[in-house]
Amino acid sequence: MSDTPYYEHHVFICMNRREDGRPCCAARGAQAAQQHAKQRIKQLNLNGPGKVRINQSGCLDRCDEGPVMVVYPQGTWYTYVDNEDIDEIIDSHLIGGNVVERLKI
Amino acid sequence: MSDTPYYEHHVFICMNRREDGRPCCAARGAQAAQQHAKQRIKQLNLNGPGKVRINQSGCLDRCDEGPVMVVYPQGTWYTYVDNEDIDEIIDSHLIGGNVVERLKI
Repeated sequence: MSDTPYYEHHVFICMNRREDGRPCCAARGAQAAQQHAKQRIKQLNLNGPGKVRINQSGCLDRCDEGPVMVVYPQGTWYTYVDNEDIDEIIDSHLIGGNVVERLKI
Repeated sequence: MSDTPYYEHHVFICMNRREDGRPCCAARGAQAAQQHAKQRIKQLNLNGPGKVRINQSGCLDRCDEGPVMVVYPQGTWYTYVDNEDIDEIIDSHLIGGNVVERLKI
């Protein structure tokens, strides 16, 4: 299980939507965050095998801490508020290799 | 980045559907596979933090090798044909810790 990872950073952004009033990532800006991250990674030419992949996912089941995303294979979980947070995760973690402690959950 | 993972095995099953005739996981049984995996993990009482999470995801961008899934944090990629393949991945990899070489991509 020690192969070189197919993606250096594989990011899953929870896009789950609940209709019953319970907290969900979709109601807290997940779609905009995912689109921003995907677009920025593409602009930086960081998308692709050996580099970065930004994915949407179903419910990651950490709803109370949301909106949430996870970066694999490191297994680092983040919450975020706005595009500045997303950019900080991209710049610090995905490019610089340094976890953003203030956003980590 | 060496914390204990939130999920011991976090499985993402590509559910992407293309409408333009190009190959996609949705057209090759991804939804049935994801439902089967989720149900079986629940029956085995393996779902939850510290254990297993079965997620659906957007396009993992390995369409030609699909249908595909990936198990993190190990970063092991699999293809599959039917529920027997899914069960083998559950029994061998998720429970036993042994990669299923014949399904690995």
